[in-house]
Amino acid sequence: MADKTVFLSEEDALTMSRNILLKKGFSKDVSRGLSETVVAGQKDGCGSHGLYRILGCIKTLEAGGVVPDAEPHVEDASGSIVRINANGGFSQLSFSLGLPLLIEKAKENGIALLAINHCVHFSALWIEVEQITRQGLVAIACNPTQAYVAPHGGSAPLLGTNPFAFGWPRPGKPPFVFDFATSTVARGDVELYEREGKPIPDGWGVDSKGQGCNDPRTVLEKGALLTFGEHKGAALSMMIELIAGPLIGDLMSYESSQHDKSKGALPYHGEVIIAMDPAMTAGRNFEEHLARAETLFDSVESQGARLPSGRRYKNREKSEKDGIEISEKLYLELRSLLDE
Amino acid sequence: MADKTVFLSEEDALTMSRNILLKKGFSKDVSRGLSETVVAGQKDGCGSHGLYRILGCIKTLEAGGVVPDAEPHVEDASGSIVRINANGGFSQLSFSLGLPLLIEKAKENGIALLAINHCVHFSALWIEVEQITRQGLVAIACNPTQAYVAPHGGSAPLLGTNPFAFGWPRPGKPPFVFDFATSTVARGDVELYEREGKPIPDGWGVDSKGQGCNDPRTVLEKGALLTFGEHKGAALSMMIELIAGPLIGDLMSYESSQHDKSKGALPYHGEVIIAMDPAMTAGRNFEEHLARAETLFDSVESQGARLPSGRRYKNREKSEKDGIEISEKLYLELRSLLDE
Repeated sequence: MADKTVFLSEEDALTMSRNILLKKGFSKDVSRGLSETVVAGQKDGCGSHGLYRILGCIKTLEAGGVVPDAEPHVEDASGSIVRINANGGFSQLSFSLGLPLLIEKAKENGIALLAINHCVHFSALWIEVEQITRQGLVAIACNPTQAYVAPHGGSAPLLGTNPFAFGWPRPGKPPFVFDFATSTVARGDVELYEREGKPIPDGWGVDSKGQGCNDPRTVLEKGALLTFGEHKGAALSMMIELIAGPLIGDLMSYESSQHDKSKGALPYHGEVIIAMDPAMTAGRNFEEHLARAETLFDSVESQGARLPSGRRYKNREKSEKDGIEISEKLYLELRSLLDE
Repeated sequence: MADKTVFLSEEDALTMSRNILLKKGFSKDVSRGLSETVVAGQKDGCGSHGLYRILGCIKTLEAGGVVPDAEPHVEDASGSIVRINANGGFSQLSFSLGLPLLIEKAKENGIALLAINHCVHFSALWIEVEQITRQGLVAIACNPTQAYVAPHGGSAPLLGTNPFAFGWPRPGKPPFVFDFATSTVARGDVELYEREGKPIPDGWGVDSKGQGCNDPRTVLEKGALLTFGEHKGAALSMMIELIAGPLIGDLMSYESSQHDKSKGALPYHGEVIIAMDPAMTAGRNFEEHLARAETLFDSVESQGARLPSGRRYKNREKSEKDGIEISEKLYLELRSLLDE
């Protein structure tokens, strides 16, 4: 019963994605950044953040929800703060333009914060925290989304799905990375169920009366998702609203929803990324301390428990060997955009 | 069936606590800091972090687990990093000595990190993040504890109960603060059940074979607690092990347990505190952005949902009116320490 799939080389996937986005009117820099993100998602087997997202980028452009050739403005705001105004473009180009200054400040002062403002956002955060760990730094990233999630004990959408990601460098190994939605699941997961016409599992969402609901469309359009971990998950979600919202002078999820005015565009808001340099925070023997962290990972695995991102890294390895897997249906839909 | 209680004035509670600790051999500065912490906990109705903890401080001293007159050493480590060596003392005095430099650095550079190393720790973190919010700053704090919690999918204690706290200043109101254990409950909660001879609820812990268990002593001594929120809560707990452990050159929970060697002393490890200044991160109009955050809190409450710390603030108000409530049994136990 599995869908038919095709396998693409990384280069072919990137070229196809870039060409579609260029044809639709995105600038060269923007198309490159977006393509790297969605291909990395597909390569790691994250369907909801993979090539499927190209359709959302185009829908957002057509709805007037993104500036296709925005040029981000980087501001060196203080000793440890970098602020980037994405000027209404997607976040990817802003992140790559701000990253060098974030790294420089983290290495100089020990901790630094990058605020991306006024961006259109859909990226999986692991793609960003991984890039920071490649510089030997530790990273935390989060952002609001749109009002899809009820606060604990409430009944109406207010909070976003608010992803929270963390990255820790591991010498000679892929980094320890996790990236989870503070909702029970990501909105993208519910969207995939809707596309496939399947009911969602219990516990993912409620209808407009706060009752449990298995219909993805009802949950997406009239109800609300739930946070993970009851009041603790809800508290964490509120922290993300605050530190990736007002703390960086940007919108909270419900404000982003109001800004969207039901255009169905990808969310417009900000993102906050914190980078820390173990060489500064742990001091002289920092390499010994990083080596000590490995004993934690070993202890988890020796209990038969798994580290986060393990499945992603396995998919990545497989993609590098066999090519990047994509459903034939989506592939044909994307190809047809090139032939229009 | 409720236990008999007595009511103390804040001054009387502080004096009693200070006098007990001084008599047991703690220095004047240490006794003052510890007393402020346990009285603040009692005042806010947090039994597990209240005056009851004095017994743990004494037990720790008698087990050789804390230096009673330690003098912390403050190091200005870099532009945004303050490191404090507690030199084997309790964390409270270190925190209060490091706080002014943390605030100065956060206000100068926008974000700063305080690492407290080599301390004996039991403080509720809300006490610390609240102090940071009083300066108009946003705060995150966390620490490992000892190996009480199994990783998700594992069976043996490895992670700590690893509290995570957040504070956000609210003009003219008590701050938005949460402080939760990443275990289903705090170890202190299980200890209170044990003291009262009551079974713990389902879902709090497992026995040595990973089976659900309601006996507090079995869970504390032979089994393990569980994290909240399944794999997401467990990921967060691992982040805390890393950023309040190796990142600041200090012990992880399981290493702290090994250090303890079953002395039953309070945990010895580090703590990390991050402070951010909205005036730097949000820029010129930061007060408007803080005012905007209030609309989030209003929306939560207008759905009938509650903000974290609400019950604590209510208890605080009641304590200020009626005095600080303490069980008569504990009060008599503490008084008897003065008469020994």
